Amino acid sequence: MSRAPAPPYDRAALLGTGLIGGSLTLALKQAGVVRTVVGHDLDAARAGRALERGIVDEVAARAAEAVAGADLVVLAVPVGATLAVCEAIGPALGNAPSVLVTDVGSTKVEVLRAIDRALPFPDRFVGAHPMAGTERSGPDAASAALFADRLCLLTPAPGTRPDALAACARLWQAAGARVRQMEPALHDQAMALVSHLPHAAAFALAAAVGDAAVEPGASGRAIAGLSGGGFIDTTRIAASDAVMWRDVFLSNREALLAALDRLERQLSLVRRAVASGDGLALVEWIERARAGRRAVLTTAGKDET
Amino acid sequence: MSRAPAPPYDRAALLGTGLIGGSLTLALKQAGVVRTVVGHDLDAARAGRALERGIVDEVAARAAEAVAGADLVVLAVPVGATLAVCEAIGPALGNAPSVLVTDVGSTKVEVLRAIDRALPFPDRFVGAHPMAGTERSGPDAASAALFADRLCLLTPAPGTRPDALAACARLWQAAGARVRQMEPALHDQAMALVSHLPHAAAFALAAAVGDAAVEPGASGRAIAGLSGGGFIDTTRIAASDAVMWRDVFLSNREALLAALDRLERQLSLVRRAVASGDGLALVEWIERARAGRRAVLTTAGKDET
Repeated sequence: MSRAPAPPYDRAALLGTGLIGGSLTLALKQAGVVRTVVGHDLDAARAGRALERGIVDEVAARAAEAVAGADLVVLAVPVGATLAVCEAIGPALGNAPSVLVTDVGSTKVEVLRAIDRALPFPDRFVGAHPMAGTERSGPDAASAALFADRLCLLTPAPGTRPDALAACARLWQAAGARVRQMEPALHDQAMALVSHLPHAAAFALAAAVGDAAVEPGASGRAIAGLSGGGFIDTTRIAASDAVMWRDVFLSNREALLAALDRLERQLSLVRRAVASGDGLALVEWIERARAGRRAVLTTAGKDET
Repeated sequence: MSRAPAPPYDRAALLGTGLIGGSLTLALKQAGVVRTVVGHDLDAARAGRALERGIVDEVAARAAEAVAGADLVVLAVPVGATLAVCEAIGPALGNAPSVLVTDVGSTKVEVLRAIDRALPFPDRFVGAHPMAGTERSGPDAASAALFADRLCLLTPAPGTRPDALAACARLWQAAGARVRQMEPALHDQAMALVSHLPHAAAFALAAAVGDAAVEPGASGRAIAGLSGGGFIDTTRIAASDAVMWRDVFLSNREALLAALDRLERQLSLVRRAVASGDGLALVEWIERARAGRRAVLTTAGKDET
């Protein structure tokens, strides 16, 4: 993709002033790519905090007002809110001949469906998924450096305008990201395994151990007095935002259920080996897990644009 | 427990020269608590490497030779090897009236059974579990600082001599650890949840995603090109040593199976909510996971001696 400098945008609309959207506008302002940012958030306190932090320069009470006159629109709401936001801004965007619309959602097929239904020119929308989330959220966690050298997946649809795709690539590169193109359905399947399943597993593990920790008795007290031992890292992402992850899970239902099948098959393998005392099967299973982890990690991030 | 300085040991025997045992003798030598360390390892190359790194001062070809004349014996083998090692050293320890024997195993009930069967004076054994593992292993990963401010659980049996318990507490404190006493069976139940289950989950997740990554087709290639997104942290401990974890799992079978039940129940909750599109149930479940994680972590490490 092009490495030409990103053209400056006079007026960007940021819909959703949380961690990811806030980090993007901070990075774009720092890079000189965006002049003025108008923010809107259903949570007025969050929008106010974004204003205080300089993430946005103005706050609009309604989404449609935020996009009026914008040449860049960033959808940074939980993916389940995409359709409602697009329906709110669609009419106001009808007279914007060259606006670029992008998003930051963790799933893409359902987002594209919403775009097709509710935007007057879906061909100017370029889906983007910056792989730079953390378990923190909100404008206070936003940072201009969040995307530095992180991968951002762009997921154009068949009808996406090539100039919009190129502009979106330059935009994310200006924010520090390495961009790479991926077919939307493939994106969602891969993410179900690399991201959504780990989150489901981390939530499940945190709930399982957390339930035991609050049960009455010596065992519960013992657990609540310990930690480390693998629990902290393995459940770190279980601190993530509930509404965001509800939307991610529900917008990628089939792929996530297939991924859960895979995880449950593996757990049944270890259960059987432990129950029958089969040490050989256990060693083979653990070695396979180690090799699997290496297979996923060793090639990670090597083939970006 | 006493905070008096640990008495010096003239000659310590280290059986198993891996990460944990190696780190302990490095820390004890640095603290001036141990003069000479004689090491033994079934893997001669590993013992040789421990000698090069100054983890041990001498290498013994047989375990019984390593403990001859020792006033401190550290069992640092995978827990499944404990009985064999104790049977090997038992006769040589018969004439050592005041030796202190300790271990570093991640489970305790089965280790105590081996001690009772094979040591001439099980009352001088004090089980210890330093909670300072990493996914790395071997003498090259050993560090004198590994236990600094980490919790070390001491698990005396009803017959353990109080002076041995006090000496063992001073020993681990000299290595930098905070010590805390816990009943062996309770230790194993708590560890099944806080440590063994997270490892099982991390292995299962790594195997599930790793299998998908090496399958032919675009989806596998897409996965292998990605990472982050929660996978790296959540599977970090899946890089752990296979033989060690085989032994941990098999030596804590019932508690681990009960813990796996808990995890599988949680996974069935998320599966049901995702399959039926129940957003409210998902948010409640995720919030419960977040609260559970906080319940485990907020009191962690607060009630040590």
